[in-house]
Amino acid sequence: MKTAIITVGKEVLTGKTLNTNLTSISSRLHQIGIDVNRSFVIDDKAEEYYQILDFIDEELIIFTGGLGPTIDDITRETVIDYFGVENYVDQVVLKGIRSYFDQIGLTMKDTNNKQALFPKNSIILKNNLGTAPGVIFEAKNKTIVLFPGPPHEMLPMLEELIDYLKDRLSIILFSKGFRLVGTGESAMEKSLVGFYDLHPNVNIAPYANIGEIKYVFTSNSESDLRKAKDAFYHKFSKYIYGGLSDTLEGVVVKILDTKNMIISSAESCTGGMFASSITSVSGSSKVFNEGIVTYSNEAKIKHLGVSLDTLNTYGAVSKETAFEMSNNLYKKTNADITISVTGIAGPTGGTKEKPVGLVFFGVTYKGVTNTHKKLFNGNRNMIRKRSTIFALNLVRKELL
Amino acid sequence: MKTAIITVGKEVLTGKTLNTNLTSISSRLHQIGIDVNRSFVIDDKAEEYYQILDFIDEELIIFTGGLGPTIDDITRETVIDYFGVENYVDQVVLKGIRSYFDQIGLTMKDTNNKQALFPKNSIILKNNLGTAPGVIFEAKNKTIVLFPGPPHEMLPMLEELIDYLKDRLSIILFSKGFRLVGTGESAMEKSLVGFYDLHPNVNIAPYANIGEIKYVFTSNSESDLRKAKDAFYHKFSKYIYGGLSDTLEGVVVKILDTKNMIISSAESCTGGMFASSITSVSGSSKVFNEGIVTYSNEAKIKHLGVSLDTLNTYGAVSKETAFEMSNNLYKKTNADITISVTGIAGPTGGTKEKPVGLVFFGVTYKGVTNTHKKLFNGNRNMIRKRSTIFALNLVRKELL
Repeated sequence: MKTAIITVGKEVLTGKTLNTNLTSISSRLHQIGIDVNRSFVIDDKAEEYYQILDFIDEELIIFTGGLGPTIDDITRETVIDYFGVENYVDQVVLKGIRSYFDQIGLTMKDTNNKQALFPKNSIILKNNLGTAPGVIFEAKNKTIVLFPGPPHEMLPMLEELIDYLKDRLSIILFSKGFRLVGTGESAMEKSLVGFYDLHPNVNIAPYANIGEIKYVFTSNSESDLRKAKDAFYHKFSKYIYGGLSDTLEGVVVKILDTKNMIISSAESCTGGMFASSITSVSGSSKVFNEGIVTYSNEAKIKHLGVSLDTLNTYGAVSKETAFEMSNNLYKKTNADITISVTGIAGPTGGTKEKPVGLVFFGVTYKGVTNTHKKLFNGNRNMIRKRSTIFALNLVRKELL
Repeated sequence: MKTAIITVGKEVLTGKTLNTNLTSISSRLHQIGIDVNRSFVIDDKAEEYYQILDFIDEELIIFTGGLGPTIDDITRETVIDYFGVENYVDQVVLKGIRSYFDQIGLTMKDTNNKQALFPKNSIILKNNLGTAPGVIFEAKNKTIVLFPGPPHEMLPMLEELIDYLKDRLSIILFSKGFRLVGTGESAMEKSLVGFYDLHPNVNIAPYANIGEIKYVFTSNSESDLRKAKDAFYHKFSKYIYGGLSDTLEGVVVKILDTKNMIISSAESCTGGMFASSITSVSGSSKVFNEGIVTYSNEAKIKHLGVSLDTLNTYGAVSKETAFEMSNNLYKKTNADITISVTGIAGPTGGTKEKPVGLVFFGVTYKGVTNTHKKLFNGNRNMIRKRSTIFALNLVRKELL
């Protein structure tokens, strides 16, 4: 099904807003086997709609944006006009918009009425987070979809569209995936040479991010999907930390919670990013009581009892300091597992022996402290981020 | 100058990559008074290039992507072919690509030769971070620009394009801007009613982000720009924390460094995000020694000496607790200024009296502790982020 996505909005054309809707819609369509052919960003002028609609020959046309109540918002009426479809004002939707206004304590204006305009026989996509409903309709052998621009309003409607398309195209599609840490996209792709060919009926798509990567599997055959998934898991289980909806910090908090354990952290170069990451998880207060950011040598001595001798002999960035930071924190707190991070985030402070990106970790569990040494690349914040992810993964592996 | 941006790449159409190039290029062009008319994303097939180039009538056409050495990368030869311009292989560029390969220890393949293909009389945009150079050339009364896809390779070339356009269009343009905190876009736009009309010769564009907003001023008249800027500053100085290249945490670190002062933090709901934010600034080790994340009541008692009585009577989320957290940290450390944050980040844990988003802050400076109460909206991480920004701004204001 040839597909075009048309984003409407000056704010994308002037660089104020990133077109995240394109990414969300196209990746979700890709997962059910529909690839977006072309994408367009246009200004909210009627002639722009007409020109593009005359130009394209795609069968599925998805608009986002321009469904609001102001005079600039012309997507609904312009597209209905272009396709010449019969239309009506839906009284149920109108009532819904009115009650939405009541709820937020505002008076509804007449201009909002147009948000209840729909082609006959269309599918109305309810908007629970705003006033502009979306719509799916068929006209001139094409499927036309109108979504509102704000991503949080659009995303629930996208799932309705996916269901509609699956139904209409009789797509029976199964989808699963993994999130991996401790490997990169190019290393993975090297290991996957030949793997894709063994699973021709399964679409396998990687999505890389700083320090982690996810693989999404989709297939119309549940057994083919399972085979591919199992083979993938078998091959890469040491990197896999969860499914698509997991986060690494969420998995760590969950394991700690299940084991009824407490974690504590002592951070130097990450400067609180590890603690912040753990506490970004709702419910983390059950597994995290305290964390210390010891940026200076004095703080390492005062809060963690790192010996002056160690700092003088080996330096703050050393496995010996990482060892003492975690080991002493473990002794001083009631935590079941402790982690320490000390390194050179740069851009200054690197030497030939200890370059920017060199980071040491200590992890103490059941009274035993292990240290790890890593050399990360990237800028200051990438090094800090990679260090945080590495530390989270260390904790995860230690607990399993 | 009517402008179109054409992004080439399957990775954008399948949702793997966000089209950040569109945002960077269009916002930069907007700042010199050139608005992007339309934007397209196409697949790397020759007929797609031809179709779009036949369709559009824009005078400035910017391609990004498809300049690499693989057979999929066809932007350079396809666009040169479409415009029918004479071309040649640039030996200097070819030598440069060869030495780039030598540097990274790889052997250059023949397919890389095509990266040195240029239209006659074109402007070559050097690539210091990859092999694919960019190019600007004029053909059929249009200005054609080819940029590589990777943003870090594209961005330096974008500045060359901006200079080229300024020169060619005799744009004399002055640009300045402010970053603001403690106000929002809608409040600002309300205050700015009438302001825009007073400065018709100055383009004033807001760019909002979570917890902060920037305003970019551009004009061809230095004195008009200064007038608008001064009036804006006069009106909003209490919100302005810096210029366009500043960050709030960078400004805070700079003020502390200038005053030769040390800061320390005691965090509950932000869980290390404040400390992480300060230490994200290169050179922050001069102003930050230690920070404590006291997530549990026990940790607040143990590390900060918050009294059990206070916690029992007023609760962990109270101005009394925020007061003691900061006040006691100030007494216990050699910091010149201390800050505390305690609140309910949600989504659970809220009550009618203390709803999700309620956050208390304490700041101690010159021995005096002040507390602040805020109610933030948004999800857990937005509340944490807004709290961090509010805390940074509290410190900034206290020090000034």
